[in-house]
Amino acid sequence: MKSKLILLFSLLTICTVAFSQEKKSDKISKHNMSVTDKGLIKVTIMYPYSEGKTFNMEYYETKHMPMVAGYLGANLVKYTIEKGVPNGIPNQPLPYMAIGAFYVKSLSEYQAAIAPNLDAIRADFANYTNVIPVLMVSEVVQ
Amino acid sequence: MKSKLILLFSLLTICTVAFSQEKKSDKISKHNMSVTDKGLIKVTIMYPYSEGKTFNMEYYETKHMPMVAGYLGANLVKYTIEKGVPNGIPNQPLPYMAIGAFYVKSLSEYQAAIAPNLDAIRADFANYTNVIPVLMVSEVVQ
Repeated sequence: MKSKLILLFSLLTICTVAFSQEKKSDKISKHNMSVTDKGLIKVTIMYPYSEGKTFNMEYYETKHMPMVAGYLGANLVKYTIEKGVPNGIPNQPLPYMAIGAFYVKSLSEYQAAIAPNLDAIRADFANYTNVIPVLMVSEVVQ
Repeated sequence: MKSKLILLFSLLTICTVAFSQEKKSDKISKHNMSVTDKGLIKVTIMYPYSEGKTFNMEYYETKHMPMVAGYLGANLVKYTIEKGVPNGIPNQPLPYMAIGAFYVKSLSEYQAAIAPNLDAIRADFANYTNVIPVLMVSEVVQ
C-alpha cells in the first residue's frame, strides 16, 4: 500500500515536470517564430518584360539565386522569388517577368559581399535571361 | 488510505489528459507557423519616384493599407509595406518611393473584393501621394 502511494506520487511528479518542460520549450519556439521582417533592408532585383524578352525561372530558382545567396553569408535573413502573371486588366502588359529579393540586416555588408563577385553574377545573367534587371533598395516598414 | 489512492489516481489522469491536450494544440499552432508563402498570389502596388512626387508613409501605413486590407477578408494572408531608400549607386534615382503588397489565396476573389470599393480606394490616393501607382500581379515561387 505504502509503495503504491510512493509509486503514484512519483508518476505524478514526473508528469508535472515533463509538462512544465514542454511549456517552456514551446515559449522559446513561439518567440523565434514571431520574428518580423520590419527594419530589414530589402534588395530587389526586377526583370522587366517587353516583347522578345525571356526568363528561365527554373535556372533562376535552382542555380542563380542560391549562388548569390551563398555570397551573402549571415547578413542574409531570407530571399524570395516571384513570377509575374497577367493582372487581368485588358491591354496592360506584364511589368516584370520575375522579381528576386534579398532581405539583409546591413546594406553596406551586402554591397561588400557582392562587389568581388559582380562579374560572376553578371556573367550568369545570360544563363536565364536576355534583359538587364532593375535594382531597388528599400526598408521593410511592415 | 483508499480515498488518497483514488485522489492521486484522479490527479494523474487529469495531468495526463491535460498534457496530451497541450501537445495536440501545439501541433496545430506549429503547423500554422510553418506555412509558406509559396503558391500565393501577390498583388504589388508600386509608387514610382520622380521629381516633385511625394509620399506620406505614415498615412499609408496607418490608414490606407488597413482600409484596403479590410475589404479583402479571409482571402488576405498578409500584407507588406516597403519604403524606397537610395541604393548607393551614384546617379541612379530611386525607382519607387514605396511599395505595398497583398498576399492572397485567390486573384479573382481579390478582384471581386476590390471592384465595389475602387472609387473609395482611388479617392484615398490624394491623402498620401500625388503619383498614380503601378500594379503588378505575381505568383510566389519561393
